[in-house]
Amino acid sequence: MLVYEGKAKRVFSTDDDQVYRIEYKDEVTAGNGAKKDAMAGKGRLNNMITSRFFELLTEAGYESHFIKRLSETEQLVKKVDIIPLEVVVRNIAAGSITKRLGFIKGEAFKAPLIEFYYKKDELNDPIVTDDHVKLLGIADDADIAELKRQALNINNKLVDIMNRMNLDLVDFKIEFGKDKDGNILLADEISPDTCRIWEKDTKENFDKDVYREDTGSLIDTYTNFYNKMEAL
Amino acid sequence: MLVYEGKAKRVFSTDDDQVYRIEYKDEVTAGNGAKKDAMAGKGRLNNMITSRFFELLTEAGYESHFIKRLSETEQLVKKVDIIPLEVVVRNIAAGSITKRLGFIKGEAFKAPLIEFYYKKDELNDPIVTDDHVKLLGIADDADIAELKRQALNINNKLVDIMNRMNLDLVDFKIEFGKDKDGNILLADEISPDTCRIWEKDTKENFDKDVYREDTGSLIDTYTNFYNKMEAL
Repeated sequence: MLVYEGKAKRVFSTDDDQVYRIEYKDEVTAGNGAKKDAMAGKGRLNNMITSRFFELLTEAGYESHFIKRLSETEQLVKKVDIIPLEVVVRNIAAGSITKRLGFIKGEAFKAPLIEFYYKKDELNDPIVTDDHVKLLGIADDADIAELKRQALNINNKLVDIMNRMNLDLVDFKIEFGKDKDGNILLADEISPDTCRIWEKDTKENFDKDVYREDTGSLIDTYTNFYNKMEAL
Repeated sequence: MLVYEGKAKRVFSTDDDQVYRIEYKDEVTAGNGAKKDAMAGKGRLNNMITSRFFELLTEAGYESHFIKRLSETEQLVKKVDIIPLEVVVRNIAAGSITKRLGFIKGEAFKAPLIEFYYKKDELNDPIVTDDHVKLLGIADDADIAELKRQALNINNKLVDIMNRMNLDLVDFKIEFGKDKDGNILLADEISPDTCRIWEKDTKENFDKDVYREDTGSLIDTYTNFYNKMEAL
């Protein structure tokens, strides 16, 4: 039974009430849905790449909602209640932070920067401080600390993977959920839809910016990325 | 000698290189200068009100940049280097936070909320997190903690003053500076330009919202406010 349909995926219940099936859609959006296209093969690429990332994180000892890949476009995950925060980790300045705060695109931060955005389409996912997060009843101090701890750990592992592909992980967005025991688990996806990735030498984009900025074929870019991942 | 001219005041050097003279202008702006008018008597009101607030804070033991009122439109202050943050304290939801985060206007917060905005006209004074403040080199952890500590103390005192005037202090903006010894001192002004103030029973505005929203005479409103203050 369909329990949730988002911009890029559908979530279904299964016979096990603690397990969901996620189906990736052949759809791509940008700018909170302002730009939108159907794109054959995109669901497969996002599912293959996300599944591989979660497998690599599991191998490195990071628990997440991921159970296993089911098919080219589907995966099984643990049921979690999504915490309505987009957790963004930035290693290099690019995108919104250059416009909002005047950082120069390409400038490396002294340390990874973590930002929270309130997942609320009608408010356009505004940036929030820790105090806002608490006041909105989204998370308490302990949960906020745990989100940041896990985000930094995941960043370390992803940077390591990208380095081996001769890529810079500029920034990425992750989401977390709570399982039935209240454990905070990495959820959602990790893919070129949710990461900003640059080739180290050419600074060429391996991410959704090629679609946002109309600078290349998304399917070719994601295919290249997936091939690099498979060659690891 | 003029050392700085802002939207509402001019700052002059004096014979004492650690002392500035501030002259309040008969000008009012809103929306980061988008709306702007000359208004006879406004400089006097802002100077009289701000001076009185700083005197009351001094009597309550809070040190600030304020030395003394010189004339109806001028005051003497200690020279400080302004920290480029607008420190906003909110007791009740109103203004930008209702639009940004969906809080209902008039909703009281469980505890005072402190927000930092980066003072940068060309970026439209964006909201920043503690991590942004550190990354931008504006303040370190110790300074941030001191800014929050002082902001809460000042809020307590101002709420107390407003209560005695049958007014609710909804929110306000303050700025801080560092003196030559590195002490963080409350600076700038405290007036209906920088506070959002509602009459407790009628919720009538005693602040610049009457100008922002064209709902009344700013001079009459500030005069009423000043008379209430004088009657304390």
